[in-house]
Amino acid sequence: MPPVVVLLSGGLDSATVLALAQAEGHACHCLTVDYGQRHRVEIEAARRVAHALEASSHRVVSMDLRALGGSALTADVDVPRNRELGNAEIPVTYVPARNTVLLGLLLALAEIVGARELFIGANAVDYSGYPDCRPEFLRAFETLAQLATRAGVETGARFRVRAPLLHLSKAHIIRLGHDLGVDYSLTHSCYDPTSTGLACGTCDSCRLRRRGFEEAGVDDPTQYAP
Amino acid sequence: MPPVVVLLSGGLDSATVLALAQAEGHACHCLTVDYGQRHRVEIEAARRVAHALEASSHRVVSMDLRALGGSALTADVDVPRNRELGNAEIPVTYVPARNTVLLGLLLALAEIVGARELFIGANAVDYSGYPDCRPEFLRAFETLAQLATRAGVETGARFRVRAPLLHLSKAHIIRLGHDLGVDYSLTHSCYDPTSTGLACGTCDSCRLRRRGFEEAGVDDPTQYAP
Repeated sequence: MPPVVVLLSGGLDSATVLALAQAEGHACHCLTVDYGQRHRVEIEAARRVAHALEASSHRVVSMDLRALGGSALTADVDVPRNRELGNAEIPVTYVPARNTVLLGLLLALAEIVGARELFIGANAVDYSGYPDCRPEFLRAFETLAQLATRAGVETGARFRVRAPLLHLSKAHIIRLGHDLGVDYSLTHSCYDPTSTGLACGTCDSCRLRRRGFEEAGVDDPTQYAP
Repeated sequence: MPPVVVLLSGGLDSATVLALAQAEGHACHCLTVDYGQRHRVEIEAARRVAHALEASSHRVVSMDLRALGGSALTADVDVPRNRELGNAEIPVTYVPARNTVLLGLLLALAEIVGARELFIGANAVDYSGYPDCRPEFLRAFETLAQLATRAGVETGARFRVRAPLLHLSKAHIIRLGHDLGVDYSLTHSCYDPTSTGLACGTCDSCRLRRRGFEEAGVDDPTQYAP
């Protein structure tokens, strides 16, 4: 099986994607990007997940997106609380062009390790508001990738963006990972954890996670703030 | 005139691009990415250029691409010396997927400042070996940009990548900038400067620059190592 690259955030979705890629028998080279997000405890979660799932390698690239501003995840803007889930509006937690940058870095890693498949945990269901989680965006990135790379130019290599969770509900993702043996207690989802690392329980990400475990009928190992 | 964003490396080409965008009357928001390149003195050159050409803003985003490895510009690999210029081989100074990542960040800035035109100093003549300096790559990025962004989704905004130097020789670029009053003594091109900041004179970048000034018939203000 050829090597693949996996974008690992430390959250529930990307941990499930790594477990899926491992289950296919690939050597998985993981990339975590520390882009100055509020929830930096995610980075440590990503290290735990890569180790627990026995990834072939794990690199952490730091990038200070706070110098750009423009998102509640990286700037000094309040994270929304108890927002109605599933409305189509793009939330303030949208980071401009984030997946373009993240996939660009993942593509760089793919070139370096000789991978042609890029696994990401993008999901078009719960986060329909994020433009760069849509299938048409991912297909456009594949076209770009062939034109952007040494491998594409020299050998006509085609890159494939694999987003196996794209059309799955959070509950479905959790059941899938549960069946693959993912230890979700290692993962972190909260956008705005307490100083001791407890999940806030009220941001969009916490609420989607909590509801997902309930709907999946799987025990939620998350420690929420009281 | 609408605002635009300009990728500013601190080198000769991007300084010329900024001067061109300013001459068109745009408010120019500049982005410099410190990606752990050997020639970090470029970052200071970018600050000087943005100031001298009176850019509307200048942001520097740090990103540690050394964590990925894979290029002579960011890893511990020797920079090639006195290499035959103009051969079609992709040089070891190629940084995997660099322009995908840099344009991704520039697109993020465009969203933040409300710009629709992204100016970059890509050149397909001297560096024909870099896949991500080709026109077909830039067009594919424009397609991606519309799909990747809030503005593209909500208002159908189209982004344009402007690479006005794409088909110009180095001598032509220098004459152009010279006529626009660019002070090239502020810019830096060398891949591997001395500890005191002198240009080495032998890397690809120095040799292209030197030859460009000669062919343009413009005095080269660069201080080369003896």
